[in-house]
Amino acid sequence: MDYVYGPGRNHLFVPGPVNIPEPVIRAMNRNNEDYRSPAVPALTKTLLEDVKKIFKTTTGTPFIIPTTGTGAWESALTNTLSPGDRIVSFLIGQFSLLWIDQQQRLGFNVDVVESDWGQGANLDVLASKLAEDRYHSIKAICIVHNETATGVTNNLATVRKLLDDYNHPALFLVDGVSSICALDFRMDEWGVDVALTGSQKALSMPTGMGFVCASPKALEAAKSARSVRVFFDWNDYLKFYKLGTYWPYTPSIQLLYGLRTALDLIFEEGLDNVIARHARLGKATRLAVEAWGLKNCTQKEEWYSDTVTAVLVPQYIDSAEVVKRGWKRYNLSLGLGLNKVAGKVFRIGHLGNLNELQLLGCLAGVEMVLRDVGYPVKLGSGVAAAAAFLSNTTPLIPSRI
Amino acid sequence: MDYVYGPGRNHLFVPGPVNIPEPVIRAMNRNNEDYRSPAVPALTKTLLEDVKKIFKTTTGTPFIIPTTGTGAWESALTNTLSPGDRIVSFLIGQFSLLWIDQQQRLGFNVDVVESDWGQGANLDVLASKLAEDRYHSIKAICIVHNETATGVTNNLATVRKLLDDYNHPALFLVDGVSSICALDFRMDEWGVDVALTGSQKALSMPTGMGFVCASPKALEAAKSARSVRVFFDWNDYLKFYKLGTYWPYTPSIQLLYGLRTALDLIFEEGLDNVIARHARLGKATRLAVEAWGLKNCTQKEEWYSDTVTAVLVPQYIDSAEVVKRGWKRYNLSLGLGLNKVAGKVFRIGHLGNLNELQLLGCLAGVEMVLRDVGYPVKLGSGVAAAAAFLSNTTPLIPSRI
Amino acid sequence: MDYVYGPGRNHLFVPGPVNIPEPVIRAMNRNNEDYRSPAVPALTKTLLEDVKKIFKTTTGTPFIIPTTGTGAWESALTNTLSPGDRIVSFLIGQFSLLWIDQQQRLGFNVDVVESDWGQGANLDVLASKLAEDRYHSIKAICIVHNETATGVTNNLATVRKLLDDYNHPALFLVDGVSSICALDFRMDEWGVDVALTGSQKALSMPTGMGFVCASPKALEAAKSARSVRVFFDWNDYLKFYKLGTYWPYTPSIQLLYGLRTALDLIFEEGLDNVIARHARLGKATRLAVEAWGLKNCTQKEEWYSDTVTAVLVPQYIDSAEVVKRGWKRYNLSLGLGLNKVAGKVFRIGHLGNLNELQLLGCLAGVEMVLRDVGYPVKLGSGVAAAAAFLSNTTPLIPSRI
Amino acid sequence: MDYVYGPGRNHLFVPGPVNIPEPVIRAMNRNNEDYRSPAVPALTKTLLEDVKKIFKTTTGTPFIIPTTGTGAWESALTNTLSPGDRIVSFLIGQFSLLWIDQQQRLGFNVDVVESDWGQGANLDVLASKLAEDRYHSIKAICIVHNETATGVTNNLATVRKLLDDYNHPALFLVDGVSSICALDFRMDEWGVDVALTGSQKALSMPTGMGFVCASPKALEAAKSARSVRVFFDWNDYLKFYKLGTYWPYTPSIQLLYGLRTALDLIFEEGLDNVIARHARLGKATRLAVEAWGLKNCTQKEEWYSDTVTAVLVPQYIDSAEVVKRGWKRYNLSLGLGLNKVAGKVFRIGHLGNLNELQLLGCLAGVEMVLRDVGYPVKLGSGVAAAAAFLSNTTPLIPSRI
Repeated sequence: MDYVYGPGRNHLFVPGPVNIPEPVIRAMNRNNEDYRSPAVPALTKTLLEDVKKIFKTTTGTPFIIPTTGTGAWESALTNTLSPGDRIVSFLIGQFSLLWIDQQQRLGFNVDVVESDWGQGANLDVLASKLAEDRYHSIKAICIVHNETATGVTNNLATVRKLLDDYNHPALFLVDGVSSICALDFRMDEWGVDVALTGSQKALSMPTGMGFVCASPKALEAAKSARSVRVFFDWNDYLKFYKLGTYWPYTPSIQLLYGLRTALDLIFEEGLDNVIARHARLGKATRLAVEAWGLKNCTQKEEWYSDTVTAVLVPQYIDSAEVVKRGWKRYNLSLGLGLNKVAGKVFRIGHLGNLNELQLLGCLAGVEMVLRDVGYPVKLGSGVAAAAAFLSNTTPLIPSRI
Repeated sequence: MDYVYGPGRNHLFVPGPVNIPEPVIRAMNRNNEDYRSPAVPALTKTLLEDVKKIFKTTTGTPFIIPTTGTGAWESALTNTLSPGDRIVSFLIGQFSLLWIDQQQRLGFNVDVVESDWGQGANLDVLASKLAEDRYHSIKAICIVHNETATGVTNNLATVRKLLDDYNHPALFLVDGVSSICALDFRMDEWGVDVALTGSQKALSMPTGMGFVCASPKALEAAKSARSVRVFFDWNDYLKFYKLGTYWPYTPSIQLLYGLRTALDLIFEEGLDNVIARHARLGKATRLAVEAWGLKNCTQKEEWYSDTVTAVLVPQYIDSAEVVKRGWKRYNLSLGLGLNKVAGKVFRIGHLGNLNELQLLGCLAGVEMVLRDVGYPVKLGSGVAAAAAFLSNTTPLIPSRI
Repeated sequence: MDYVYGPGRNHLFVPGPVNIPEPVIRAMNRNNEDYRSPAVPALTKTLLEDVKKIFKTTTGTPFIIPTTGTGAWESALTNTLSPGDRIVSFLIGQFSLLWIDQQQRLGFNVDVVESDWGQGANLDVLASKLAEDRYHSIKAICIVHNETATGVTNNLATVRKLLDDYNHPALFLVDGVSSICALDFRMDEWGVDVALTGSQKALSMPTGMGFVCASPKALEAAKSARSVRVFFDWNDYLKFYKLGTYWPYTPSIQLLYGLRTALDLIFEEGLDNVIARHARLGKATRLAVEAWGLKNCTQKEEWYSDTVTAVLVPQYIDSAEVVKRGWKRYNLSLGLGLNKVAGKVFRIGHLGNLNELQLLGCLAGVEMVLRDVGYPVKLGSGVAAAAAFLSNTTPLIPSRI
Repeated sequence: MDYVYGPGRNHLFVPGPVNIPEPVIRAMNRNNEDYRSPAVPALTKTLLEDVKKIFKTTTGTPFIIPTTGTGAWESALTNTLSPGDRIVSFLIGQFSLLWIDQQQRLGFNVDVVESDWGQGANLDVLASKLAEDRYHSIKAICIVHNETATGVTNNLATVRKLLDDYNHPALFLVDGVSSICALDFRMDEWGVDVALTGSQKALSMPTGMGFVCASPKALEAAKSARSVRVFFDWNDYLKFYKLGTYWPYTPSIQLLYGLRTALDLIFEEGLDNVIARHARLGKATRLAVEAWGLKNCTQKEEWYSDTVTAVLVPQYIDSAEVVKRGWKRYNLSLGLGLNKVAGKVFRIGHLGNLNELQLLGCLAGVEMVLRDVGYPVKLGSGVAAAAAFLSNTTPLIPSRI
């Protein structure tokens, strides 16, 4: 029943789906329930309130959609835009590429701003476009907060600032799939109009819930958006929100209870502490990469991602071999290089419910794998560099002091 | 953490989500995994092969979509049709109504054939329409195999026969949400072009998987269908099928393993035995209703559903009270009457992984509830009628002989 | 992996092990933990405090021993008595027989007071013995509160009264295996010196914890008791209680958390409500038996048990066939007749986390099985009798009002 | 519900209870069952057969007792010996001490052969005793295969050789609690008469099962052994083995299914591969300790344990601080020093279902903790030493080649 079982734990370091904490696994370990009984709306009400907190919004309206990140993208776009609408979108890696592909297939007129893979969104170009766009033909700016393929985090505050500077009314749509609950994200402060994430990322749950949060402006836009949508239509949700039953179609009972626990764990740790933990683990990973003498795919420090690190391997090595070898020998799951960077990078996902020693075990594994594939790494070097940093910065676990 | 806990088991008799067998709950009790490792495609391959069996097809192509039944509908429609296409659709209850609503919102020209709620699809009207449609303006026939709101099962073989009689090339699209894996359904034999169901119904899993199966003709139609779709686009799946990695976006690891076990249990019992069990439980339920002196919402025997029975209550009773009371006093979950039959019917779902004594416990509960709300039922009467039938027809459990 | 799987739920109506509520299953769904960390003592402390409540004692000292009921018996005896000690013990069925066998093998001088199986302990004989025993040669009275083999509940208050009337200092040792948490039991009020139960009975957990509670007098007796014991020695526990680490050897982490939840559920429902629920289900079962025209193995109403009903079958029927048939055809697990009543009775366990509709499903199953084995029962008759009682007495579920 | 939760996984490196593999957790995730149904004996039969394999015996008789290691000790002793019997027992650490304490309290005449904590059993003394004992007053040799407190593995083959050399008929009783399923153990080849272990050790299950395996000679001895026993009496088991029902009292259904899976995983990996894995992880740990400049509590290489390493800390450090700090800061659970070595050693348990990267994560954590408590360890040094060894010796995972 378990395909290709190996002894001991699987070391899951892909940038999603990520490790699920035991309390969440426990919470989901249950039979179905009637979702029309009073219990499910009571539970849902608390979830919707608390989901807003992870977006750092008080004015947004969250939608919890039984779908994946791809579906969440579609929900964000089709509810706010109409076919033919001009949008600006940044291509900086595989996931922004896929989103752009979706934008084009949904019939929008996409102004693609491309950067080298490993660079962040080119906001200078955005500035020019906004400056030129006096008649506000640009209806939306679509940007991936954290490009999972290259480990690049874009500066959303700057995007907001540009929109404000040019007094531009474009909607600000953000893919927060590998950022929300892990990186600093502030929906209200940054004036984000639609933000979205998926359950299997920093929320540390199974796949199956797309979280989409809409600002009042986005809800207003939804009223006139002419993109065809039914499954992803916010209106169906809003109708049931009013009725207090919340669900236009059957939710996953298991995921609802899982989400309740996932949120409880995050709030118990403290959302800002969770973000600080990601910053710590991200930095530790980068120090290890440096100690190994390898390069980060991310070209500048300002774009370094605290949820995923894409590591460039020397030309004589196929990074897919690194991933394959880790899995076959050490029960280690690393992320492949995708598309343009296939064979060139492997990725270490360090997001979600994770701690220092898990990461150090992974780094030790990467070292052994690198040696296996012919890279002359000094064993222990990355671990030492990461540990030196972590041993100075890791706080005591609050509940255990 | 458990909202409104009651002592003992919840008796779950809504027509979905239904009871999950313990082995399936167990199989899903796991951490996430890298879905790009060799394990997940190996597992997926067996699933896709076996899913075809529950549709009784050898030529169909199944898609397992991270969505609900509503999403599965959208997938069926948008992949095979173009905006403006004329389709014939039968309105016989709340779920066919919702599907028609979706069809209209997706931009099709829907020829609605309406029946009283409690009647099956009017196939005489279909015959006339097909007869008239010499130039084949009708692109698809959309029909719900089993209308969950009224407990009506339509005769799909007759639909096929009419299409054949008139040599009509319309696509034959079937909502099998509350039928597949429970009622006799034969995709290939009946020439169904797209059939669909959801995981939380007769497959007895959590919500989260929409199963859509496409005939070769449907796949061909997909090539020219101009409905906008991305998340639901079969092409993205087909591309990954070819690559042998299967998933265009992250599947739920837990549901994949759950599905493996759900299918194993069905095949161990034997799909035809599963269907026979549903026939037995359906008949037993109807005998109880008759013994109570109540009427079945379904107006003719030919439409009786073996997965859900909608029971009409006398005018002086509000059927919502029956449901409420069952839940509040006996931890019994019955289905509400929806829309036109709200207040008039309550529904007993008898689909999925269920056995005789579970049903009899439910029937005993309904009797007590009916008395609670003022209907002078003879306690034990329905149970006696059902048991008389079941005691003559229930086979020994094969593994225990 | 599941031996002899059947479709739908197993209907578990043996008088132990009993159904485990889902929240308890969930709580136990976890990895091991270091039992010497601060977490386990913190948890244990709450458990020991709360376990006293189910014994209704404030002065008793509870021991939670990794063993079964048989081990709990041994713990009760060896810690309070010395080889050769005279004890009075009542033989009224298979479990009292086994306890007496243990008492004899442990070297005590057992004064066996035997009754017909189906009768309660003969307390008149006890009275005579106490009256005669002027020099207090009797060191202990050993009595089973509820004899699980025959469904007989003994009157413990009377035993206490007799001891008081004769001012007799004998220890009062009670097997509460199938009573505590289900029947009215009052350790302090009745002056019980050692009471015991097992986790798989009314606490509705897996097997693995023996609960033994000792009065101050019992603890005092332990100081001079010369029975050889190590694993079952209370002193080892008391030593670790003082240290605040609680465990002389490794406890089951899973059962500790399971117990926490099991107790929480009992207190949430209210212990007295739990007991009232058992009274209700016991009475309903007896009404069904009467309606079937069958006799209760228990000969007088004063001894009727609210946790298990032993049903006498007519001579021409082998009760083992009833049990076998229930399991093979209806996934129903009933209790066998044991020893003297083998073939003559089958048992319906109605203890633990159970509700009305579960019981009615069971009763409906028993009716069908009785017919299968040739007894001309009127189908529905028992269910009707039970339901008539239950529909008048079942309260609303408090959390759902 | 989770006492003192910390983010990420707990790193469980106490020498028991150990990590439970997910498939075993899954297998135990279930309701109770009637243990008198045909299913449980069918399952038990396979378990008893397979348990013999982990003892490497074909002639032994296994008993699976609902107890802990302490209870298994008591079962081994009381079934084979009589009060007053002379036995030779080796005191080399806390667990052999506790067993000797039990032996004495059970009334045996214990000839204690003491060694320094950190040394193995003094077999020279055994040789002398056997040589002197011409009239065979010594009834049994009791020895701990692996002393968990000091990480010392005794040489059982030599014990056997001595018994053979002196043609001595003493029973050979072995505590294999922290060895069986992890270290090389050969019941038949070494002529062991009783061997025992517990479920929470190398079998990687929860606490709750004591495994005791008796040679034909031990079974013969049981016939005349006069130690008082009931709960631990093998005869009760043997009676039910003959009946084919196997259980004298209620087993834990959950642990039975858990054991089935635990054994399946061990046989899938291959018992000898499991042992080799332990050898590899043990050696890696010792190399790390050496690299840290610390001493192993085990004084000679011949006694090195592959399941637990007790690490001596410098005098100016309290080893309890190491353990405390690991738990409080890194969610790392290490073993405390016990009794004579309290404050002087901390222990790394490396037994059970564990792999290379888990161990390296632990070692990295120990390094950081050592620095925290003032020991000037070079971060990464132990990981590097361990990894250098592991990267040369870890095989590919067979199912993934």
